[in-house]
Amino acid sequence: MNIVKKVAIIGAGNLGSQIAALSCKGGFCVEVFDVSESAIEKSKKALQISSIKYCSKRDELSKDCDLIIETVFENMRVKRNVLSWVDKYFTNSNVVICSNSSEFLPSSLCKKMQRKNRFCSYHFHSPSTHADIVDIMLHKKTDSDVPEVLTQFTKNIGLVPFVIKKEHKGYVFNTIFNEVIAQSISLAVQGIAKPEEIDRCWMVNTKMSIGPFGMIDLVGLDTVEDIMYNLLPKKPLNVFAIRYFKKYTKQNYLGKKTGQGFYTYPDPKFETKSFLE
Amino acid sequence: MNIVKKVAIIGAGNLGSQIAALSCKGGFCVEVFDVSESAIEKSKKALQISSIKYCSKRDELSKDCDLIIETVFENMRVKRNVLSWVDKYFTNSNVVICSNSSEFLPSSLCKKMQRKNRFCSYHFHSPSTHADIVDIMLHKKTDSDVPEVLTQFTKNIGLVPFVIKKEHKGYVFNTIFNEVIAQSISLAVQGIAKPEEIDRCWMVNTKMSIGPFGMIDLVGLDTVEDIMYNLLPKKPLNVFAIRYFKKYTKQNYLGKKTGQGFYTYPDPKFETKSFLE
Repeated sequence: MNIVKKVAIIGAGNLGSQIAALSCKGGFCVEVFDVSESAIEKSKKALQISSIKYCSKRDELSKDCDLIIETVFENMRVKRNVLSWVDKYFTNSNVVICSNSSEFLPSSLCKKMQRKNRFCSYHFHSPSTHADIVDIMLHKKTDSDVPEVLTQFTKNIGLVPFVIKKEHKGYVFNTIFNEVIAQSISLAVQGIAKPEEIDRCWMVNTKMSIGPFGMIDLVGLDTVEDIMYNLLPKKPLNVFAIRYFKKYTKQNYLGKKTGQGFYTYPDPKFETKSFLE
Repeated sequence: MNIVKKVAIIGAGNLGSQIAALSCKGGFCVEVFDVSESAIEKSKKALQISSIKYCSKRDELSKDCDLIIETVFENMRVKRNVLSWVDKYFTNSNVVICSNSSEFLPSSLCKKMQRKNRFCSYHFHSPSTHADIVDIMLHKKTDSDVPEVLTQFTKNIGLVPFVIKKEHKGYVFNTIFNEVIAQSISLAVQGIAKPEEIDRCWMVNTKMSIGPFGMIDLVGLDTVEDIMYNLLPKKPLNVFAIRYFKKYTKQNYLGKKTGQGFYTYPDPKFETKSFLE
């Protein structure tokens, strides 16, 4: 079985960097690749971990990495091309190759790969959401040792593995929580309650430390707007939700990252004690 | 303004009894009415509060109660008749009359009442779910002091008032959480993950102490099955969910109340420490 020692992360964005940091902390050798020098600089500055090897040229990566995690942006064509190259480049015969895609199914992502049996989805939630589950979603051709390797690796980096044997868009948690978001937006759009009121109601009843609109602020209003656009053929009522979101996004109220979304940052109202009273 | 002193609770079922106990603890005079002597005996035995006045005949209730909370079972005809009688019986001119209905809209419930302006919905969640929000849902004719009276009363009995000015079936929290339940059942029916796995995933990510299937066990599988039946015209896919539930309900696996549902009681697996690992 593959005993992971060397991890390659393809894509130095927010999530890629976070996975690199966790892997490093878990005692693994970590190499991070990105075509963008500025992405690499940003990642270096954010992490400040000298033992991570950054590469901006493909052939700088060690060919004998055991675990390859692709975290490039959510575009099927780009992901397929990256995975096809990864498949050819890394030589370890029991390498595990995985994609962090939140949208696409593993059987579709690996279309251009030869070693489809060494591949599955490996989905991290954004660390800022404090969601500790990492989804390991197999497709029909995935070798049985692959989820074992990823289960062990996930535990080693301090997170909770969750194996899903049957492909399903949205995994398990996102499938459920996306509906929480959708229903909350729908209630706000209909004027039944305001975003803050909905969050308060959710937080009082569930004892969660964040509500649906606080979560949208973390994920980014632009990202949620994109998801709603993509779902338009299935959910035509999203038209009203998108119009509602536009009022915020037009003013660059994109959530925590721009300092303003449904709440104002760095000290959003929902984090104050009096919010729940 | 109506300063509540005397509360009448119409219906001595589980929820009626719980509201009676909270009202008593909050310092109010409490009278509980039920046509069923056995319901009254059960309530007396469960609460053991000697200061509560129980009545099995309508005219035993004090005519000058300030707040009347109807908690009879979920049947529109029965509720309308009870509310019509309540409206005529209690003489206080600024009495507040409300219904604990979880299904019906206040404007519809008060159809047979004269004093529609003194009426709104007042919805308690089952205490076993630890959901502290009490919904106060107005209809167009509700007087403006009515939500104020109920807001103050809710705080006095240690719960959190949540005023909804525009009528909406399912209130706010149930509208959202019902979708959590629906999506979870759908994932289980499709075989994407097992009930226990879904709960674990939900609990790890949200830090809630219970997951969707644990919640179904609390509410009762028979109750959830009924709700799915009622929704069939809107959600034909529920056919598969109902078939899935039948496997449990046929064996009297109705949840916590029968000792067996998705979990075995009194010590369900999801309450053990190792469940989340």
